[in-house]
Amino acid sequence: MDIAQETVGTEETLDPADWAAVQALSHQVIDDAVDYLSDIRDRPAWREMPAEVREAFAAPLPRSPVPLAAVYDEVSRTVMSYPMGNIHPRFWAWYMGSSNFTGALGDFLAAIQGSNLGGGNHAAGLMDSQVVNWCKQMLGFPASASGTLVSGGSMANMIGLTVARNAKAGIDVREHGVAAIEKPLRFYGSDQIHSCHRKAMEALGLGNRALRRISTDADLRIDIPALRAAIVEDREAGFKPACVIGNAGTVNTGAIDDLRALAKLAHEEGLWFHVDGCIGALIAIAPDNAHRVAGIEWADSVALDPHKWLHAPFEVGCALVRDAVAHRRTFAVTPEYLESTPRGLASGEWLHDYGLQTSRGFRALKVWMALKEHGVDKFGRLIDQNIAQASYLAGLIEAEPLMELATSPTINIVCFRYQPGVTGEALKVLNTEIMLRLQEQGIAVLSDTTVHGEHWLRVAIANHRTRREDLDLLVGEAVRLGREIAAEGSLRK
Amino acid sequence: MDIAQETVGTEETLDPADWAAVQALSHQVIDDAVDYLSDIRDRPAWREMPAEVREAFAAPLPRSPVPLAAVYDEVSRTVMSYPMGNIHPRFWAWYMGSSNFTGALGDFLAAIQGSNLGGGNHAAGLMDSQVVNWCKQMLGFPASASGTLVSGGSMANMIGLTVARNAKAGIDVREHGVAAIEKPLRFYGSDQIHSCHRKAMEALGLGNRALRRISTDADLRIDIPALRAAIVEDREAGFKPACVIGNAGTVNTGAIDDLRALAKLAHEEGLWFHVDGCIGALIAIAPDNAHRVAGIEWADSVALDPHKWLHAPFEVGCALVRDAVAHRRTFAVTPEYLESTPRGLASGEWLHDYGLQTSRGFRALKVWMALKEHGVDKFGRLIDQNIAQASYLAGLIEAEPLMELATSPTINIVCFRYQPGVTGEALKVLNTEIMLRLQEQGIAVLSDTTVHGEHWLRVAIANHRTRREDLDLLVGEAVRLGREIAAEGSLRK
Ligand SMILES: Cc1ncc(COP(=O)(O)O)c(C=O)c1O
Ligand SMILES: Cc1ncc(COP(=O)(O)O)c(C=O)c1O
Repeated sequence: MDIAQETVGTEETLDPADWAAVQALSHQVIDDAVDYLSDIRDRPAWREMPAEVREAFAAPLPRSPVPLAAVYDEVSRTVMSYPMGNIHPRFWAWYMGSSNFTGALGDFLAAIQGSNLGGGNHAAGLMDSQVVNWCKQMLGFPASASGTLVSGGSMANMIGLTVARNAKAGIDVREHGVAAIEKPLRFYGSDQIHSCHRKAMEALGLGNRALRRISTDADLRIDIPALRAAIVEDREAGFKPACVIGNAGTVNTGAIDDLRALAKLAHEEGLWFHVDGCIGALIAIAPDNAHRVAGIEWADSVALDPHKWLHAPFEVGCALVRDAVAHRRTFAVTPEYLESTPRGLASGEWLHDYGLQTSRGFRALKVWMALKEHGVDKFGRLIDQNIAQASYLAGLIEAEPLMELATSPTINIVCFRYQPGVTGEALKVLNTEIMLRLQEQGIAVLSDTTVHGEHWLRVAIANHRTRREDLDLLVGEAVRLGREIAAEGSLRK
Repeated sequence: MDIAQETVGTEETLDPADWAAVQALSHQVIDDAVDYLSDIRDRPAWREMPAEVREAFAAPLPRSPVPLAAVYDEVSRTVMSYPMGNIHPRFWAWYMGSSNFTGALGDFLAAIQGSNLGGGNHAAGLMDSQVVNWCKQMLGFPASASGTLVSGGSMANMIGLTVARNAKAGIDVREHGVAAIEKPLRFYGSDQIHSCHRKAMEALGLGNRALRRISTDADLRIDIPALRAAIVEDREAGFKPACVIGNAGTVNTGAIDDLRALAKLAHEEGLWFHVDGCIGALIAIAPDNAHRVAGIEWADSVALDPHKWLHAPFEVGCALVRDAVAHRRTFAVTPEYLESTPRGLASGEWLHDYGLQTSRGFRALKVWMALKEHGVDKFGRLIDQNIAQASYLAGLIEAEPLMELATSPTINIVCFRYQPGVTGEALKVLNTEIMLRLQEQGIAVLSDTTVHGEHWLRVAIANHRTRREDLDLLVGEAVRLGREIAAEGSLRK
């Protein structure tokens, strides 16, 4: 690249001196990306990085320029060659979506047009609000509710919990802090609740102790009588019960609390009703399974997560709040350099008044483009498809004498293990080794967890590329590896 | 698109039935993007959306599919045609970067390979840590420090303040909450502090009152004797002084507190020293101006903001924390389904243990690619260039009898106004009208603010496309509009 050409007078810019060269390289980037995704099924689900790739990431801050083509070449060899794997049809670890090409174009276009979604009167701002409105429509939330797109489900939950805290504090908690609240607030959720709620309680200054974990029934749903008893007990002990968090899909097993019963209980007891719908809120758009999350539309706030079951590229979560005034009142500040003007750019709404960010990226575009392209009905069918696949997998496991299921899957999460007749630690070591070899051999990526105190392998199918044949392969390969490991006698540790 | 082709057996996917068509369309997207940025100088800096564009964003949730080409066509006509404007060479409102093409490719590639930066053993995870290391190197922070890439400067500040709160609480505040702290904590910052600190104090349950605003000197830098007095006073009143927040570049005028003096004071008083370097931390890489932020390397934590002066597309902020143990101890939780394994994908570090997100996007790639392409030295020169442009603009204003400066700019922010001999509200109305017409006529985008109690127009030059000729144009056009408005006699309101 010719530095002299790049500067105008003595002034430099990040724009390329030669746009045509960048354009040609970008066509190559597109062609490679198309190959990358269209061939994904033929590549390993995961593979270990060789030492030289690992070492490349120890390189210090680069001082001088390198041609963009060389930069891209390095990215191809390192970053693109060793992804996490969640774009692969046989990735079922933890819980995440598998991204999509249209969404990637959306992120590219968002970066090209560059708008800051902190607010203002421009097209991206209106689209951001439109996507929030679409989220309300998907869940049956009233049009008068408010909402905001955030970095993910954890932040979406934190937004809901912050509004709940402030709405129930009984004082101006923004001004005076949590220590000034007369009776300490109590929040409730099941013992299956996601760790982000603990982190939110800690960050909000309420403390982990203020989140009471209520026991669950055999299906890992919150035990409503136990919840009711805890509320009574807390009131008697001088606490103020403030908020109940319902799970619409737990991360461990996909359990869905009885949301209608929780909504009624919250109403009767004067509690805020927040639903963690990061996994399951979007089941509301899936015709065969929508009934499972009935009652979600009664929540005071909901967290949902388009980067899970809408497969938007990271990051995008969404918080919805029924009482728009309470929502805005929790976060809005208008400093002097952000005052609105009657006309022009600053006459738009300040979208950052609904959360903790000031600058905000244009997360809406990738969601919007994919929803327009496919229509929401297809996303609903894909959710039903994943749930049907999970029950297909459960069937395969039940039919396999060497395997056992933890519980029948409610939605798209299946916990199971290889069971050749061992117990305790040996069983855990064996299954962990199966999981690792499935990964290391590039066959499939699973994770593991503890259910009812025991160790299980776990498959979460939030993947638009998974087919039933992938699940057949999984069961076959897991059994093969189980036998192989048993034959080795002693395990490598 | 042929639905039948898209499904395999009865199974659907979001992948296109016809990759070749998507590839061709994507080439068009690239070509349009190149035109869009290479022609940016010839387009208006901002323009009002026509009613039909506005109305398009009221459309409800789409149920059925639309060809991707039609989706892109709508995006071009609405979103791409009415951006905020910060990619334009004459956009100087609020404070933000102007994005860059390479960064947009980075966001595209990140979405294609799709990794979740919550952690794990994969290439994106290592690059995320590498970019954090580069941030430490840019600021002269020790290699043993920790850090995390977050959604922006507001979250980066919140991370620093949360670690400060927990480190100084004197109790296990994660478990017991803020109400259990023996002596209420006090945080300090100047009266010029960014509004995100107030939001963080509120969110953290400390309350806005716990953030004492200390007066500033004529240059709008924190008054150190006043700070010292406030600390003494608070100790006597039973508070626990916990943290001082230094400004490395205030949003109003770019004022930089005396960071060395604050570091010494914090050390003597046993306070946490956090620096809000969202605007100015990166001045550390700019040879002519680095001295202005000397002392930043002594901070306990720093917030910096690559989506400002590194021009990364939104979003990417970064928090650095000197004491890596205190950092991790503030946020880490390891739930059962996230336990590490000795090998495989789950053997990598859990990057989410350093912040409030669980899933995390691959923000690092766009920063990495642009730093590799240009080298950090060029980013340093661009920062010096913007600061020199601000002083050039200040010179133009001083030479113009109809204009006045609020204060000489310290860095890249210039506050000034058109002053034909009016005062008070009339002066504000006049300057607001100049600002609005500059915008509505597509000439330039400015914002306004209050400095020492008076209204000023404000130009923040964090823009790699700005040239001195753009500033000549600004001054000429502002005077022309000032005259035009005066000639109209009464203003439209
Ligand atoms: C039930 C539940 N809630 C919240 C989250 C957090 O969502 P995110 O990873 O988008 O922050 C998850 C993530 O898996 C989840 O499963
Ligand atoms: C001094 C300062 N701190 C913090 C922020 C917040 O940064 P962000 O908008 O990236 O959240 C800003 C934004 O302009 C700022 O100027």
